[in-house]
This record gives sequence, structure tokens and C-alpha cells, in this order.
Amino acid sequence: MSNTIGTLFRVTTFGESHGVGVGAVIDGCPSRLALSEQDIQVQLDRRRPGTSALVSPRAEKDKVKILSGVQGGLTLGTPIGLLVENADTRSGDYVDLAQVPRPSHADMTYMTKYGITARSGGGRASARETVGRVAAGAVAEKMLTHRNGIKIVAWVSAVGSIEAPDMTEDGISRKDVDANIIRCPDPKSAKKMQDLVKKVLAEKDSIGGIITCVCSNVPAGWGEPVFGKMTAELGRAMMSIPAIRGIEIGSGFNGARMRGSEHNDLFVMKKGSIRTSTNRSGGIQGGISNGEDIVFRLAFKPPATIGSRQKSVDYKGRKVVLEDIKGRHDPCVLPRAVPIVEAMAAIVLADFSLIAGAYAGK
Amino acid sequence: MSNTIGTLFRVTTFGESHGVGVGAVIDGCPSRLALSEQDIQVQLDRRRPGTSALVSPRAEKDKVKILSGVQGGLTLGTPIGLLVENADTRSGDYVDLAQVPRPSHADMTYMTKYGITARSGGGRASARETVGRVAAGAVAEKMLTHRNGIKIVAWVSAVGSIEAPDMTEDGISRKDVDANIIRCPDPKSAKKMQDLVKKVLAEKDSIGGIITCVCSNVPAGWGEPVFGKMTAELGRAMMSIPAIRGIEIGSGFNGARMRGSEHNDLFVMKKGSIRTSTNRSGGIQGGISNGEDIVFRLAFKPPATIGSRQKSVDYKGRKVVLEDIKGRHDPCVLPRAVPIVEAMAAIVLADFSLIAGAYAGK
Amino acid sequence: MSNTIGTLFRVTTFGESHGVGVGAVIDGCPSRLALSEQDIQVQLDRRRPGTSALVSPRAEKDKVKILSGVQGGLTLGTPIGLLVENADTRSGDYVDLAQVPRPSHADMTYMTKYGITARSGGGRASARETVGRVAAGAVAEKMLTHRNGIKIVAWVSAVGSIEAPDMTEDGISRKDVDANIIRCPDPKSAKKMQDLVKKVLAEKDSIGGIITCVCSNVPAGWGEPVFGKMTAELGRAMMSIPAIRGIEIGSGFNGARMRGSEHNDLFVMKKGSIRTSTNRSGGIQGGISNGEDIVFRLAFKPPATIGSRQKSVDYKGRKVVLEDIKGRHDPCVLPRAVPIVEAMAAIVLADFSLIAGAYAGK
Amino acid sequence: MSNTIGTLFRVTTFGESHGVGVGAVIDGCPSRLALSEQDIQVQLDRRRPGTSALVSPRAEKDKVKILSGVQGGLTLGTPIGLLVENADTRSGDYVDLAQVPRPSHADMTYMTKYGITARSGGGRASARETVGRVAAGAVAEKMLTHRNGIKIVAWVSAVGSIEAPDMTEDGISRKDVDANIIRCPDPKSAKKMQDLVKKVLAEKDSIGGIITCVCSNVPAGWGEPVFGKMTAELGRAMMSIPAIRGIEIGSGFNGARMRGSEHNDLFVMKKGSIRTSTNRSGGIQGGISNGEDIVFRLAFKPPATIGSRQKSVDYKGRKVVLEDIKGRHDPCVLPRAVPIVEAMAAIVLADFSLIAGAYAGK
Repeated sequence: MSNTIGTLFRVTTFGESHGVGVGAVIDGCPSRLALSEQDIQVQLDRRRPGTSALVSPRAEKDKVKILSGVQGGLTLGTPIGLLVENADTRSGDYVDLAQVPRPSHADMTYMTKYGITARSGGGRASARETVGRVAAGAVAEKMLTHRNGIKIVAWVSAVGSIEAPDMTEDGISRKDVDANIIRCPDPKSAKKMQDLVKKVLAEKDSIGGIITCVCSNVPAGWGEPVFGKMTAELGRAMMSIPAIRGIEIGSGFNGARMRGSEHNDLFVMKKGSIRTSTNRSGGIQGGISNGEDIVFRLAFKPPATIGSRQKSVDYKGRKVVLEDIKGRHDPCVLPRAVPIVEAMAAIVLADFSLIAGAYAGK
Repeated sequence: MSNTIGTLFRVTTFGESHGVGVGAVIDGCPSRLALSEQDIQVQLDRRRPGTSALVSPRAEKDKVKILSGVQGGLTLGTPIGLLVENADTRSGDYVDLAQVPRPSHADMTYMTKYGITARSGGGRASARETVGRVAAGAVAEKMLTHRNGIKIVAWVSAVGSIEAPDMTEDGISRKDVDANIIRCPDPKSAKKMQDLVKKVLAEKDSIGGIITCVCSNVPAGWGEPVFGKMTAELGRAMMSIPAIRGIEIGSGFNGARMRGSEHNDLFVMKKGSIRTSTNRSGGIQGGISNGEDIVFRLAFKPPATIGSRQKSVDYKGRKVVLEDIKGRHDPCVLPRAVPIVEAMAAIVLADFSLIAGAYAGK
Repeated sequence: MSNTIGTLFRVTTFGESHGVGVGAVIDGCPSRLALSEQDIQVQLDRRRPGTSALVSPRAEKDKVKILSGVQGGLTLGTPIGLLVENADTRSGDYVDLAQVPRPSHADMTYMTKYGITARSGGGRASARETVGRVAAGAVAEKMLTHRNGIKIVAWVSAVGSIEAPDMTEDGISRKDVDANIIRCPDPKSAKKMQDLVKKVLAEKDSIGGIITCVCSNVPAGWGEPVFGKMTAELGRAMMSIPAIRGIEIGSGFNGARMRGSEHNDLFVMKKGSIRTSTNRSGGIQGGISNGEDIVFRLAFKPPATIGSRQKSVDYKGRKVVLEDIKGRHDPCVLPRAVPIVEAMAAIVLADFSLIAGAYAGK
Repeated sequence: MSNTIGTLFRVTTFGESHGVGVGAVIDGCPSRLALSEQDIQVQLDRRRPGTSALVSPRAEKDKVKILSGVQGGLTLGTPIGLLVENADTRSGDYVDLAQVPRPSHADMTYMTKYGITARSGGGRASARETVGRVAAGAVAEKMLTHRNGIKIVAWVSAVGSIEAPDMTEDGISRKDVDANIIRCPDPKSAKKMQDLVKKVLAEKDSIGGIITCVCSNVPAGWGEPVFGKMTAELGRAMMSIPAIRGIEIGSGFNGARMRGSEHNDLFVMKKGSIRTSTNRSGGIQGGISNGEDIVFRLAFKPPATIGSRQKSVDYKGRKVVLEDIKGRHDPCVLPRAVPIVEAMAAIVLADFSLIAGAYAGK
């Protein structure tokens, strides 16, 4: 009962990885917002598999269809139904999995919880579940651009041990990010990352990494103490993305090693308004945005599905050796996860935008 | 509108740091659970200031009063109202703050959001807000012990750059944790941490650190895909705690540097049941508990309030120098944050326990 | 932001009356429940227009498609997406409405609220919105039958001033209800009602009426004090149905005229268990089910769209005479509303069933 | 888990009838609203027992204390904690009830649900639970007056078979209502009602009745399709009040007997704006307010506790005769229920006010 997120801008997603289709219903989007299928398609295309040598070769077209809530290019204020039909579903690839839970995947926990698993890989634990998020996030982003001029840009800042330099203050654009297939805006690091992913793929292995996200032009005063702090809602939204195992906002884990005298963001005047001289708070103080860029980093574990041999047991506890799973999975999910992270950030901010509006006119 | 957390086990907290009192209302706790004020007082006493040289000298007694929902030592199934009256409120200590927002504290963002700030330090952004969490968490824990035999233990695993060795598999108890005032169960590290905090205090500064938490005996199958994954709900709950800037579950940020072949938790048979040979998943796969220990780490930034001089500006943008703020704050929040972390973990797990029950009888 | 209902069994509906389609997403349905499209189709067919001379001649097939959440005839525990495509959408029929709000319809309030209205009649205020409710209700009912053996039967108990005798204790079945096209299980009253509707239709007018609903085999102990009482949740669910203007449970408005000594339901022993000798409480005491039949009655206003002349004003306030609106609407919504009422009752009870389960194992 | 109501303006109530106290936490009230304990006390005094010969002689003072969220007479935007301590709790009066469930009261259903009952009468099913509603409603009303100039007035329009004439268009004020102790603004009817209640009381019996409520100056455009329609939220809120068995909005059950041609509210121009010539819709069309007065009527059953003899059974099924229960209850709850109805209306409208604000600035 938890496929819905948000208080006023509510997103409900549905759909298995290899069923009829995946989608989302967005409830609470304001009326008269210009919205087309193409607005949504742009981000779906960035998430889509089969676009480079580094990602899964599944050749899905992922064309979105607006089922409701839009008329003549404008939102009606009613629920926006979105559907992406599944196309390339070779469920045969996964047929052996029926008896053997894949290590570090959700097969075992789903079976424990539901007593049944989707015929093919993953079900709602598959990366395909994120199609609904990305589609809904594109709508959220359209609203945020229109109402607040907010910009959200995420990129790959680390793959394995290869870390790109900090670029959070460089005004990175999505064009910069998409300049290479690994989606790291630092060309030198990008080259090394791509080489690493190819090597890992050749070795039938997978690799983790880090995505950095910056949200700019977020007005000060968003976020709801105490359990609805912006840190908390971003924490929830991001930690719900498959494969994410950690989030840090602003100085994050590095800040844990610092002293207050070096960590505090001192107030200064910039162009007539009170700003902070540094941004170790990552744009959020006391759970409320302070007008600086929202900055956070996300740790992705390496994909659980790998081609090399693994000793494990089946559902009955019998020893098995898993090998050469033919499922068309990614050696590194990071490049395709970039639009997913942006989507979840947009969904969280869209909700805060509406809530802030509720109290603006008092 | 976000002082409530939970779907079935719902906790609402209230109260300012220096007003009449702070408290919580717990809605959805099962009936006929044995519950006394003392059950709650134990954890409040661990959170209380004034207990050692390392924490704030505020001498609050923090005695909890049960207002409703309990009769003859048993819960009635009705809302449990809890109140802790404020005692030692020398609001004079904070009087200068009315015109000057403290750097990296929530004064400025609260003023932006609400157009008014609590007369004295912090209001709902004060650490005192967490009294309600700890009180409610103690009730959640009582329920979890009774229903599921769950144990939750958190400890200080790093202060500044001093990191204790990994003790997540050592069966650490609260007694071990409380063996020293810094609440690190490794005596050697504890000594170093205490020395560092004293040094920092002497230098009118503050220091951050890391808390590790382990929840054991959590049944497999808890957690609700997709936005209510256990990772997501822990992410939200923990990232709502004041001063926390990051969370990592299982392998966390370290996992981002690993390959799938070294990261995967292979299934093995242990005492007749299917378990994992390692626990890099931190007990959660696909957002659902797998029966292994739930393990996570939290990054706390250094407290924003320090005694040394800071150049800043007031609410009107005029330059000021902040110095020698006499508020009785902590140089390091970590020891007192231990029961807060345990409380939030208990609140999250209590909710999952009830939700799991809803689907158990089908 | 209110197209979702339920705490654990959550239903989200979407879709305009004359857009691509209408549907629902059900989140929180237990896994391994047998479910087919036919299970849902049965109730949709009862709601469908074009089935008799008494209802709208719109010839919609309303075939439901399961998009997700079901595999091999069993639910997966994941969201169940349901879609009914729109077919017969002669939007030309409504073209003049763009400038003239129909009296007592939602055109004017939607325009005030959203600043835009659906091209054709009604949008989300159209009776077509209820397709999603009926589809989701059929799933809820399947679950309730399986888990609790609950039976829900609604019928038309009054049309205009023609009131059927009280049949709430007669064990009425859906077969009894469907024995005639007005859906009143008392044949004499049914004849009179049908004659009245025909007369009203011939006079280009419409007529209101009352639906009675009985839910049997509901276990004692369901319902959540205080704002989630069964009376409250039924009140909300039923008062959300288009055209409903009143609900009364048990003795209802008649009970307001009674004395306690005649109204009280005295406890008696029946077949070894404590029951009540009468059921003026309508099966609910203190907001909690007592094991007797849940009984309630609903007042439907006459449909706002009529064929006869009406003096009104357009959106600019200019006087107009509305006449002969060719939209294919119903002179009396009651017969088609029967499955809608049953659906909303099932959705409410399904949620209570799961919540009750959460506390059963304590 | 259902002691909270509202999406943005959230009210959580707590407290048993005869425990330490009863109260409420209001989360989401805007900051900088002028608010004093006296603002709240006014309505509590209207709800209080012991004020006339017609109501319970329990002599409770019901003094409210603001625990948090207010400073210097202004709200802080943080949760407003409210507490009313219980005073006159002669639990001895109820001692025999421990073994015998009172007919048509909630004793039996609470015991079934929770396996335990409050020591004394009613627990959360007692009328005393409504103290928290009234206190919170007073805050909601303060906000509505300030933001929207809304006025909410309820009165007793029927006791037993004595019905006052329709006064919904007479601009009744609370002063008019409080002109007599039965709280019916029609003096002739009031006299008859009072005589009836005295007669009923003398006969150790109780009597039901009807309350009418009018909310004026509610802006057009409030209410959220489809499950959050204003009809639905009022339905839920009102049907959660103890003893209420029915609600009708606008024409209500009478409308069920009407034809569309006589029921429709035609649009007309009044003072330059589009209004309706009649108000059979009760101010709500398609679930959204249309700017006319919100008008609804509520059926209250007669109080279950009466002094005369009743044959019943105890919890073990043994026959008993209940007689002369000394609990100090009301022969007619209507007069004291007036402020409760106003409170629930205010809570519902306050939530809609904030939600409407969220979409106002788009």
C-alpha cells in the first residue's frame, strides 16, 4: 500500500517489468499547465535501455501515452494518467529464476512477503518500475519550471573508485551531462569511468557508483518540520530508488569529521539579499530550504545480476551454482539512473511548492 | 503539517524547546500492551542533557506523564498522550538572538518560512523537539519487544576523524554502549573520542560524528514497495533528526566502490533456514527485510552553536560578530542522539510490524 | 489531490468522461487472490449505460483491461492497474455547453476552481468517473468474499415519492435486485417506479430516489475510533458519489424522532453468541461494527440534466434559455447507481478488513 | 490509528472520558494568527455539561491550556497542543458497567475490538472525547474568520417530533441560538422542545433530534474531487460525531422525492456576480462550493443511557436487568452538540482553505 508518494502533488505508480505496461497517476497537478507527451518523453528517452554499449541492450521504445487529465495541451486539474506499454519482454530469459532466488536481488524477499513472484525478473523490484517515476517526475518538473523557475540536474560523479572532481558549483546543465554516455560532465573522469564499465562488463561483473544532484532556484522557506523536513522527504524519495544504499546532503559524511567553526555557513550579503558564504548545509537548514542550491549525493550499489558464477541456494535450500544469466541487465545503472534521481527530486519539490503556496496567502 | 509520522502506528509530536512542554500522541498502538511511565523514562533519561561533562549542562528532569490511553498498566488501544513539562528555561540566555540568525542553525529559515521565531533558541528546530520522539519510540519499542522480540541498539562509531572499528556483528547491547559517557562500545576509541570532545569544548568549538544502529530479530518480509521500502522509511525517519546529514544502509557509500561479484550476499543454509553469508544489504533487499540484522550509519554535522567568534549578518543584513553565545548547548550531540536514533528506528519498525500483520492472515 | 481513498487498501481513480479512458489503481490488495477481468466485468456491466429504456442510451461497452498486478489469475500483491477505454464519445452533443454552465451541474464550480472545463459534459463530475470505483470495488469485493464471506447488496428502495417496503431483513440477493430494470426487489413497487420514470422521461424531466444497502457477515470489531469510525468512512465514501445528498445509517433520521427506550438495541443470546434483538444501530455502535448487518440508505437528487426549458445565465452572466440538451443522460440514476454503492461499500470494508488484521495477531 | 483528521490542517485528538485529561494537537495552522486560550474557551463553555437543567449535571470546568505553538498571543506555525484536564470523575458511578455492556452504547464493540474497556463510562466513545474537537475547531474557526470571513452557525432544529420551521435563510447568529437553553432560535419551538426534554427526563428516558448548520461566506471553488468532495469530507467529519446517524446536504432526503425541473438551482445575476436563485444544492455542486451558504442537517439518535429498566445480557451472556444507572448523562445531547457540529465544520473548512491556497498562486 505504498505506491503513492506526496501530500498535495501525489504520484501513484503501477506496473511490473514484464507485464502489460507500467505507468503513473498524478493527482494534484494544477490546472492550465502546458503539458504534452513529448515533455515526458524526453526524460523517458534518457532512462531507456538500449541506448549505448554501457547499458542494458533491451530495446524498449517506452512511448508514453497520456490517458487523462490533459486537453488541448493543458492540464485540467484532474488526475493525469500515464501509460507506457511493455514491448520487448523475452520472459524466457528469466525462466530459470523461478526456482532460484538471485543473490542480493529482491526475489527472495518478495517471495517471503507475497508468497508469489512475478514470472520474470524483478516485478516491482525491477528497474522498469522507475518508468512511472520518470514520467511523473517530468510533469512535476514542468510545473516547477513554470511556477518557480527551478532547475534540477543530476550526473554521475563516481563509478567504482573513480571520482570526478566536485562540480556542484559549476552550473552544470543537462547538455553537459549528456555530452558522454556515462553522463559525467568532467570529460577526463568520464573517459576513465567508461573504460572501467567496459572492463567490468567484459569480466561479466557489475560496478556501483555515485550520483550528485543539484536543484537551483528553490525558494527559501520550503520544507515542513519535523517529519516532513526537506532532508527527510528527499531521504525517503531517494532511498526508495532501486539500488540506492545511501544519501548525504551538503557536507554529508564528510561533515561528520568537521568542527562547527569550519562547517558553519556564515551569513553574508550578496546583491542585497542575505545568503550564505559557503553551502555545507546543502541548501537546507532545520529541514527548510534557505535559497542556496539543494545539493546531495547518492550511493548506488553494484547491480546484483552478474554473468559470472555464484554459489547460492534455491528456494528449497538446495545448493546451486548460478551462471551466465542471460537477462539483459546493466553492468552499471548510474547513467540511466540520472533521470530517475531528477524525477524523484522534482516530485518532492513539486509537493513542497504546493504546500508552500497553501501558506503563502495567509 | 508534518509533525505526524506513520501509517498505522502514528506518532504526532508537539512542543517548543522553551515553552510549557513537549510531548507526543501515539495513535494505533495495540491494546493490552503493558506500559508504564518508567518504560518511557529510561530512554528519556539517556537523552537528557546535564548528565556528563560532554553534553549540555541544562538540568532538565524530563519526567514523562501519560495523559491518556493507559489504564492499570495496560494500553487501551486509544491514543497515548505523553507530556514532558519544560523546567529549566533561562530564555535570557538567548535574548540577543532575536535580531541575529545563528549561522547554520534554523533561525533564518524559520523566520523566512513563518515570519516569526520562537522567543528562545530553536523552537521546533531545537534538540528538545526530540523528547517527543524518544518518548514515542519507547512505546514503539515496548510493542516490538512484545510482538517480535526485536532489539535495537545504536552507538557512537565516530567522532570527528576518530572511527571505532566495525562492531555491527558483535552483538553490542545498550549496556555496552552506556559503559562510557561518549557511548562508544569500543573502550579505546571511546577514550580518544572523549578526549577530542573535551578539547573541542575547551576551544569553544563543536564536532560531528557518526552513529551506527543495528536492529536484530526483524522478521523477513517487512517493508512496502515502492515508496514505502524499509530503506525509504528509515531514510525519511533518520533524515528528519536534527543535525543528520546522511544515512547509509549496509555497505552504503563504500558499496558504491564495489563490484557485484564482491558485493552480492550469497544465499546459504544456516540452521535450516535460508540466510545470507554476508550482510552488505544491511538486512534489506528490494526494500524488504530479509531476516538479517538491519544495519545503518548516520552522519551528524557538528552543532552549529559554538562559543568562538563568527562574522555574520543580522536579519537586516548588517554585519555583526557573534561571540560567546551563553546557551547551554552540546559540543557534540552524538551521545545524546543515540536514544533518538533508536526511537526513530522503533517507530518505523512498529509501523511495519502492524502493516505486516494486516497481510498475515489472508 | 483527492482521487485516492483508503489507508491500506488504497484506490486511486482517473479519467474523464469523454477522454481516452477511465480507470483505477488498487494498491494494497493482498497477494495470491484469484482475480480475473470477468470478476470485474460483471459489476461494470451492471453500471453500464444503454441497457434498458430507463437509462442513458450511450452504448459503451466498458470492457476492463488489467494492466498490472495479476499473473496467471492470481494477484501479485503489487498495484492492480485497471483501464476501461472510452468508446462512444459524441462530444458534439455537448458543444454548446462550453459557454453555458448547466444548472445544478458541476460546470460552474469546476470552472471557478480550475479555470478550465473538460470539452464535453462533466469531466470528473460525470457519472463516467464512477467506472473506476466500480472496477476497484469488484476487486475489494473479491477479497472480502474470500477473507470474510461478506455479502453486499444494494437496491432501489424509492423513486420520487414511491417507496418500497423495508426489505432490509429479507436477505435480498443481487438476483432479486436484477429481476427488474429499476432494480427494486419488491415487484409491486418496481412496476410503479418504472412507470414513474417513463412518465418523467416523456416529460423531459428527471427524478431522484433512495438506495438501500445491506452488508452482511461483517465481523464485529471493525471500524476505527474516532475520525475513522465505520459510520464516518461510509459517510465519506457514499457522500463522494455523484448526486448523493444524504446518508442515514440504521434508524437514521427516523431515529431522531425516537426515545432511547424504544431505540436501544437490547442484547440477547442467539445461537450462543451475544447479538442485538433489533438493529436500529445499523450494525455499528460507537463507530465499530457489532456483527449485525450494516444497513444504510442514500438520498439521490434528480439528475441535473433535463430536456425541458430552463432560464439561466452563461459564464458571462448573460441570460439564456437552455432547452433540449441532446446529451444522452439518465432520467433516473438509481438503477445504474446500485453497483456504485456496492463498490464504495466494498472499498471501505476492504480497508477495515486489512486494518483489523493488523491488530488481530497481537 | 484514526484519531487524526485533515490533509494540511491536521487535528489529532486524545483522551478518555475519565482519565487525566482530553486534548488535541493541531498541526498545520498558519503562523502569526492571533490566538488566546479565551478564543477556545468560549466554545468549550458552550459544550460543557452542567450548564442547564436539560443537560448532564457533571460539573466540569473544562479549562483549556495551550501547551505549545503560541507565543505572545500569536501562533508560531508549529503544532498547537491543547489540554483540558479532567476534574469531576466519579468513576464509582459506572462501576457496575464493568460486567454489563450498556445497550446501544459502545461498551460491547470496544470490548470486542480491544479486549479491554475503560474503567468508566465510554472511554473514547464518551461524549467527553469531543472536547478535543471543540478546542481544535475553535482554532480552525479563528483562522477561517481571519482568512475568509467565514461564519458557522448550528442550531437545534428538531427534538423528537417537534420540528422548528426552516430558518436556514434567516441569517441566524450564535446569539440567536444561545437565547434559550435548548439552542433553537425559534422561540415557540424552543419552548415546546424544552418541555419535551423535561418530560423525557422525568420519565427516565432520552430523546433524539436534528441539528441544522449553515456556513456562510465560504468562497466558491473549495472541495476536492472525487473522494475529497466537500460533501464527502463533511459526511466523514459529521458522521464521526458520537450519536449522529445521518447527514443530508441541501435538499437531502427531501430532494430524493423531487424532479429535476423543480430541484435545479438556476443561475441568476445578483449584484454583478453569478449566483443561484435557490439553494437546493446546499452550496455544493460536484463536490465543490459554489459561493452560496453551505447548509446541512444532522440526525442524532436518542442517548443510549437511560434511567428506566432494560432487559439485556452481560458479557458472559447471562440475562440481566439494567436499571437506574446513576451516570450523569444527558436526556438530549442536542444543545451541547451544537458547538461540536460547528467545530467539525470549521476543521473541514480550514483544511479546504489551505488546500485552495496551494492552487491559488499558480
